[in-house]
Amino acid sequence: MLVPPGAVVGLEAGETVRAESYGRKAADLARLAALGLPVPQGVALSFECVASLAAGGPMPELPAGLVRDGLLALRPSPEERAWGGPSAMLNLGACARTLALLTERVGVVAALRFHIRGISRFAQMVHGVEPEEVEALIRKHLRAGTEPDEAALRALLADVEALYDDAVGEPWPEDPGEQLEAAARAMALAWRAPTARILRQAKGAPGNAGLGFVVQRLALSLAPGVSGCGLLQLVSGRSGGPEIAGGFTLRSQGKEASTRTYPLTGQGAVETPGQMPLPPLDELAPAAVERLAAAAAQATTEFRDAHLVEFALEAGEPMVIDSVPVRRNGRAAVRIAVDLANAGVIGREEALLRIEPRSLLEHLHPQIDPAAPRDVFGTGLAASPGAATGRLVLSSETAMTAAAQGEPTILARVETGPEDIRGMHAAMGVLTLRGGMTSHAAVIARGIGVPCVVGAGDLRIDLRARTLTSPDGRAYHEGALLTLDGTRGEILAGAPAMIAPELGGAFSELLDWADAVRDLGVRANADTPAEARMARDFRVDGIGLCRTEHMFFDPERLTVMREMILAESEEGRKAALDRLLPMQRADFVELFEIMRGLPVVIRLLDPPLHEFLPQESEDLHALALAMDLPVEQVTARARALREVNPMLGMRGVRLGLVMPEIYEMQARAIFEAAVAVNRDAREPVVPEVMIPLVSANQEVVLAKARIDAVAAAVQAEEDVDLAFRLGVMVETPRAALRAGDLALSAAFLSFGTNDLTQMTYGLSRDDAGRFMREYVNRGVFTEDPFHTLDLEGVGELMLIAAKRGRTKNPGLVLGLCGEHGGDPSSVRFCKVAGFDYVSCSPFRVPIARLAAAQASLLVRDTADSVQ
Amino acid sequence: MLVPPGAVVGLEAGETVRAESYGRKAADLARLAALGLPVPQGVALSFECVASLAAGGPMPELPAGLVRDGLLALRPSPEERAWGGPSAMLNLGACARTLALLTERVGVVAALRFHIRGISRFAQMVHGVEPEEVEALIRKHLRAGTEPDEAALRALLADVEALYDDAVGEPWPEDPGEQLEAAARAMALAWRAPTARILRQAKGAPGNAGLGFVVQRLALSLAPGVSGCGLLQLVSGRSGGPEIAGGFTLRSQGKEASTRTYPLTGQGAVETPGQMPLPPLDELAPAAVERLAAAAAQATTEFRDAHLVEFALEAGEPMVIDSVPVRRNGRAAVRIAVDLANAGVIGREEALLRIEPRSLLEHLHPQIDPAAPRDVFGTGLAASPGAATGRLVLSSETAMTAAAQGEPTILARVETGPEDIRGMHAAMGVLTLRGGMTSHAAVIARGIGVPCVVGAGDLRIDLRARTLTSPDGRAYHEGALLTLDGTRGEILAGAPAMIAPELGGAFSELLDWADAVRDLGVRANADTPAEARMARDFRVDGIGLCRTEHMFFDPERLTVMREMILAESEEGRKAALDRLLPMQRADFVELFEIMRGLPVVIRLLDPPLHEFLPQESEDLHALALAMDLPVEQVTARARALREVNPMLGMRGVRLGLVMPEIYEMQARAIFEAAVAVNRDAREPVVPEVMIPLVSANQEVVLAKARIDAVAAAVQAEEDVDLAFRLGVMVETPRAALRAGDLALSAAFLSFGTNDLTQMTYGLSRDDAGRFMREYVNRGVFTEDPFHTLDLEGVGELMLIAAKRGRTKNPGLVLGLCGEHGGDPSSVRFCKVAGFDYVSCSPFRVPIARLAAAQASLLVRDTADSVQ
Repeated sequence: MLVPPGAVVGLEAGETVRAESYGRKAADLARLAALGLPVPQGVALSFECVASLAAGGPMPELPAGLVRDGLLALRPSPEERAWGGPSAMLNLGACARTLALLTERVGVVAALRFHIRGISRFAQMVHGVEPEEVEALIRKHLRAGTEPDEAALRALLADVEALYDDAVGEPWPEDPGEQLEAAARAMALAWRAPTARILRQAKGAPGNAGLGFVVQRLALSLAPGVSGCGLLQLVSGRSGGPEIAGGFTLRSQGKEASTRTYPLTGQGAVETPGQMPLPPLDELAPAAVERLAAAAAQATTEFRDAHLVEFALEAGEPMVIDSVPVRRNGRAAVRIAVDLANAGVIGREEALLRIEPRSLLEHLHPQIDPAAPRDVFGTGLAASPGAATGRLVLSSETAMTAAAQGEPTILARVETGPEDIRGMHAAMGVLTLRGGMTSHAAVIARGIGVPCVVGAGDLRIDLRARTLTSPDGRAYHEGALLTLDGTRGEILAGAPAMIAPELGGAFSELLDWADAVRDLGVRANADTPAEARMARDFRVDGIGLCRTEHMFFDPERLTVMREMILAESEEGRKAALDRLLPMQRADFVELFEIMRGLPVVIRLLDPPLHEFLPQESEDLHALALAMDLPVEQVTARARALREVNPMLGMRGVRLGLVMPEIYEMQARAIFEAAVAVNRDAREPVVPEVMIPLVSANQEVVLAKARIDAVAAAVQAEEDVDLAFRLGVMVETPRAALRAGDLALSAAFLSFGTNDLTQMTYGLSRDDAGRFMREYVNRGVFTEDPFHTLDLEGVGELMLIAAKRGRTKNPGLVLGLCGEHGGDPSSVRFCKVAGFDYVSCSPFRVPIARLAAAQASLLVRDTADSVQ
Repeated sequence: MLVPPGAVVGLEAGETVRAESYGRKAADLARLAALGLPVPQGVALSFECVASLAAGGPMPELPAGLVRDGLLALRPSPEERAWGGPSAMLNLGACARTLALLTERVGVVAALRFHIRGISRFAQMVHGVEPEEVEALIRKHLRAGTEPDEAALRALLADVEALYDDAVGEPWPEDPGEQLEAAARAMALAWRAPTARILRQAKGAPGNAGLGFVVQRLALSLAPGVSGCGLLQLVSGRSGGPEIAGGFTLRSQGKEASTRTYPLTGQGAVETPGQMPLPPLDELAPAAVERLAAAAAQATTEFRDAHLVEFALEAGEPMVIDSVPVRRNGRAAVRIAVDLANAGVIGREEALLRIEPRSLLEHLHPQIDPAAPRDVFGTGLAASPGAATGRLVLSSETAMTAAAQGEPTILARVETGPEDIRGMHAAMGVLTLRGGMTSHAAVIARGIGVPCVVGAGDLRIDLRARTLTSPDGRAYHEGALLTLDGTRGEILAGAPAMIAPELGGAFSELLDWADAVRDLGVRANADTPAEARMARDFRVDGIGLCRTEHMFFDPERLTVMREMILAESEEGRKAALDRLLPMQRADFVELFEIMRGLPVVIRLLDPPLHEFLPQESEDLHALALAMDLPVEQVTARARALREVNPMLGMRGVRLGLVMPEIYEMQARAIFEAAVAVNRDAREPVVPEVMIPLVSANQEVVLAKARIDAVAAAVQAEEDVDLAFRLGVMVETPRAALRAGDLALSAAFLSFGTNDLTQMTYGLSRDDAGRFMREYVNRGVFTEDPFHTLDLEGVGELMLIAAKRGRTKNPGLVLGLCGEHGGDPSSVRFCKVAGFDYVSCSPFRVPIARLAAAQASLLVRDTADSVQ
């Protein structure tokens, strides 16, 4: 076999060292060297060369000086750094001549240490000697914590060489070229091992991913004086703000345990109890730190991202070993991208594309400090993000009392119902043992932005003992200090350190840029004036879903609602509805005032009526007493309303057609409110009325006729022109298939992807929690379809509906109003599918704004590349 | 205006009298006349002529003799008889000359009666005189029950003529031509009235449907002697068997109240208490009856269907007034069609096409005699067809005790559970107050062929008082005699007369013909050996759905099943499953033996586990005691398994993947049973294993891997080759959309259209009962989609799936196994969509066989007509 052409190229060759031939590390080092940074002299070996080595091919010839004049480092260089690879081998070339040379340069102790490390590492990596055997020899000759002397090191070296001879069957090869070849071949073979291939394929590497090598002069970081290894970066990985961060370990070769880390500057010092603080490196070697900071700045510009430098000092002289992007959390990522764009290093669009939209959540809610210890005693579904600390309370009343005294609480319930809403408002966090992502607790908590964990089925509540007990038997009494992590779905003991939310600065700057780019509308799901205000603060393009039922959970209204439900006749229902009318109208007036100039989609009543009645028979008794009705009548009505599968029952437009007086009341409230708000002629409101749970066109035709009649009546009574739009919520597969019909009556279709996903999969979100984790872990579902829109099933139905709808009605407005509205890949899908807007809970609006901007950029780029 | 060409044609003109120009009645009368039957002389007037009359056009000239020589009848003749039209007008042409003529022929009394009837009818029809005014005059001059004398009749005639003069403002027109023209114009205008048009359009008439007239010599059926009117047919309308049936009224002109009916033969005599029996007509006028019987036979051959003759006798001389198809019930229709085919009057294929498949249900179950009075005191859903009478029992135990004593019972429960199954077997009929068409009671009852009504929510059961109470307060104590009509969904007091089922004779002959024609397979849904035997009796092509869960409801197995569910660990579950294995295997051995040589699709466990546990806390306590487990453990497990929407929960393949040991046990039982049955090498069984509730292809891949492994293990253990097919039940919209993927792993797809309909509509069948009737009545849904396959939604998903599946796997077998398998229009859809088979409950197999034959004939005819 011959050495392939271009097998070896010097790192000084600059752009010739391409990542796709020599690997990313080789290419980056060549770029750093070209910047004039002190990169140790060396060469890159091509993928082809390494593959040939693995196949038994010859080692190419390296520059003679490189091999003869000192020790070497052999580093792997795959095409992408993330794909991993074998460990680097340092200290290659140990032989009598280099020992003498090194002794001259760094003294005999350091020289011996290089040699011993070189031989033992080689024995392990190339010949499979057990690390324990080497360690036993080290223990025999050296004492931990003391500086070794020459005699001990010479004895150790002799024993290590004997071990080598013994294990390998031949003496230590004195020829550096032979050592290098053997090491390179071993690493080349390791890259080909099946396990290694599987591992990197899991990280996205192709089956035939290549490996290159970098062979460099070794930095003599074990030398006396200010020698060692470290990292330096110019921004904080936690805030993204400017700060010299990193660390330095004296006389080391990279990361070594049991070595103390020197801070780089006085600001970076960390006190460790019981130990003298180490001086900062900029006191020991100020010029080196200055040079390295400049190097990090150069690398940042060169690589167009905040980069750190991995460096070595050789008696105070800095060398750049490598440079990689700074590790950062979500908040830091935003600050860094915005700062880079403002510094002109990257463009604003690139800044937008660099941020994972979901990471913006970290800005919106308090988070538990990632560095804080976590005493988790229970887990459930992460139903509403953010973290909160407070005293445990087991009833809504206690939560309200505590809130009145300014005491923060965590409300824990088996499950919540309408009667808990005020308690949920009063608490800092809500925990339920039952229920899924669309349970009452989850929906309400997300709506009001309270952290919430639901379905923590392993926990037990004992209302007699007033305790919350963990599966391992730890019992917390009411009043115990707990922390709820709604982002992760965990319940923690105590009060770990928190990081406050931060919505200004870089965060808001980035979103301004996003709004300038995006052309997909972002609306909010907001049910109450309070949520609408929150949505307006998040700068939405309107309300995409106002679920009117949540307006009825207020205690006073709930009472009237229950009177309506328990009424024996249409007249009785109408009487109760007449009392609800002014309340609903007042809600809408407030909502419309807040959302002036923006569209507001109001969904007519959707849930089955039994959701408004208590579940337990005691509560039904109490209700009967309060309403002055026979207990039998109340329980009979509750029983009659009970459903086997409430999700698939008498709700939505079915209720609207069977008891038309309900929708008529709601339509009247909407129209009267619109008339009232529009009187002053400032930015008029055009309400959008949405009919839920449609499965047949005739449902829309009949409901529309009644709503139009109410609109005509209000117009006549008020003597005004009333503009409104009527639309359909597409939640059933059948509505999607029949969208062509629906589009003839509807001005807009809004996809309720929560229910549409449930029905397309035949999977209740409330019940799926039991196995969803296992399903996703085992790859049955690639993703939880309630989090990420299922493009293959639900998505196809949406595409069918969009196409059929727009064919029949080209002006049809298309929106998405499920929780997927805040999921970036779903937002991208909506953009590609030609939708007009997405709507999501207020706290996910920033995610959707950024995702929409990214989608616009990506679609444009694809379009460009197609042309 | 001119008289249109061809306005008048004589009935003797035969084929010239086309129904599309002169109306059906005219055409039929011409055909009867051409047969040589004694049809009174007359002419037909064309649609065009009648339309012209309505528009004020001239009356065409009629044969002079016809108008001058006697009284006339003017009869409407629309294109289809079903479209209705104005009433006929008899006795036209009353004038001095005809009075004299008639007096000569039939005597003065009969002549006067013709005249009086003619004038008063004309006054009412043409001039709107109130019938009460005429009746007052009749009451003044005649005494009911006595024969009028000439003097009284003359006085009456004078008063009637005076009334006419008074009301119309001019004297009675003596000119018969003038009378005829006025009557014809009035009838032509009546046909154009908007109400009349709407009425006939509701019956399928086009907007411009034409009306023709027949003008005939009047049969003088009021004459002395054996004169009168009657009907005669040669087959029974109830059995379809040969029998001279009909009746005759003396001296009448068609149907006249308060006239006694003479039987046609001695066999047809009906005794009326307190009255002397009338002599049969074949004693009074034997030649006439013989002639008329021959006429009916001729008409039957001529019109290729069992026809009756409407006749008049003029002093013993028969005349044929009309001939129409014999009215018949479903059973008679089959017998008639088969007899006609056997007599060579029609072909077998035509016989097949003449029977509405659904009407075959009448053959399969006892029915309440349609003639019996019905004392209905409650209604619910018609969950399982047939009628049964028995003593009311309110518990399954009582039903079993009564059955042991040979006492038939009707079991009434609020709802049923697994513990009621033996009681349901023991009862003759089952009634539940709760539940829908897929409730436990409904499914089990249909399976075992027991009449059942569910969801009778207006009834109340009081277990203390042991009563069943109707909404109007009627209370029936346990032991009361009740009748359940599962075909109509009614509960009746007492024991009305029944008609027994009849499966032999014409019924089975017709189905043999159907089998010879059809090319769509018909399988049965059968869960137990008993049902499989029943299916085999109905001559199925295999079992399309064996729901294995029903095998676990037997008390002994239920106990082991519950142990499995309550086990805390996989080992505990396996131990219980090991005990279930031999029981399941034995079931399958029996099933396979019964179904030798035919395919058997076995669906792996589908329902959620909580369906196997009791609902009530008392029952859970008892269960804990019986199992020797802590009550808390049992109730906690039951609570943990409870689901918000069980239809969309942890069931089907989800359960199969999370607890794989269940499917593994079932697969082993299936394979071991197949091996055992196939040992003797007679007609080997190839089991078809079906995975339920799939929504993602990976579910199939994972379940298949485990099932294949079990098959391999059984093959190795038994040292045999084991053939089986694995398939997927398509019940979720997503499975339909992803059928292309599924077809790569599956040998067959079977559409579970019950669940597919539920999910496509987002509509729980159990909860839909509450509003389905209203929805269908108001036309929101054109049909109940659980009865008739929704072609626009569910059907489209099936077509998508069929196309995608067959594209990827051209050999893919496609079946339908929901209740729609027994619905004729759904069967037709499956044929057109290229399916291989439908599968339905055993009792619907005959319907499906006939519907499949019809579909083949219709598809072939369409194909012929396309070529």
